[in-house]
Amino acid sequence: MPSTPLQPPAFDPADVKAIEGSSYPDKFKPAVAGRAKRRLGDALGLKRFGVNLTTIKPGARSALRHWHSREDEFIYLLSGELVLVTDAGEQVLTAGMCAGFPAAKADSHHLVNRSSRDAVYLEVGDRDPADEVTYPDDDLVAVATPQGRRFTRKDGTPY
Amino acid sequence: MPSTPLQPPAFDPADVKAIEGSSYPDKFKPAVAGRAKRRLGDALGLKRFGVNLTTIKPGARSALRHWHSREDEFIYLLSGELVLVTDAGEQVLTAGMCAGFPAAKADSHHLVNRSSRDAVYLEVGDRDPADEVTYPDDDLVAVATPQGRRFTRKDGTPY
Repeated sequence: MPSTPLQPPAFDPADVKAIEGSSYPDKFKPAVAGRAKRRLGDALGLKRFGVNLTTIKPGARSALRHWHSREDEFIYLLSGELVLVTDAGEQVLTAGMCAGFPAAKADSHHLVNRSSRDAVYLEVGDRDPADEVTYPDDDLVAVATPQGRRFTRKDGTPY
Repeated sequence: MPSTPLQPPAFDPADVKAIEGSSYPDKFKPAVAGRAKRRLGDALGLKRFGVNLTTIKPGARSALRHWHSREDEFIYLLSGELVLVTDAGEQVLTAGMCAGFPAAKADSHHLVNRSSRDAVYLEVGDRDPADEVTYPDDDLVAVATPQGRRFTRKDGTPY
């Protein structure tokens, strides 16, 4: 191990604060309780894509099942086991496996921890101010606004 | 381990072909001999950023030292040890450490394997058709053209 702390532009991800909770309307927050994200890309000053080191506790999930209209997503599992759920069904990802979700591909996905220990993965997504998010299993839609992403019911009414 | 092979949109990175060599002019190719990239993002159909799983053999390096005018870069070391070289000097990265290089930040960087075993890392970069690359240590510049990135000497003459 290095004998001195790393200096920018490098760091130990453990030094970045892990953020729990979500911006979902209250009724959906329990779905992602047990999820914590370390926003590595933000900490490094990156603007063009985000990189999070995310921990999913047993029983928790990465997100509500969804797909993005204009943003690509990539995930790489570092430790533990996660079930990847897509329209085609379920499969178990183990450490070292990866998955990707191209923008505008209407295949909703999320990751669920059905194991008895934490799972840790890297997630990458670009940032498109016109991105919209579709949630087929829930009465929820995310639309882009000048003030950022806004959640409504599918009929457009606010929560 | 899962008993059946993973199905799209997930896969084992080991199933993606490792590509050696580089598009540098011939005189610079030896600098990155011993580097092999598995283009995970391309294999997953991602367009908005690239993700490579890159192996650097002992004595090899990630690239000529450089910075990008319009592309962010992120790296996360999965195994082995790499020396990160920037304008500020050198530091050793071990597994689980990360670094990032924001677009337009004129701090040239690369990763060198001075250890006796392979190092493996994930690298992410977005894609900007107007990106230019500066190489302070070498008589080389990469400019964007409609046909893709083109390398010349610093005085603009071709190799």
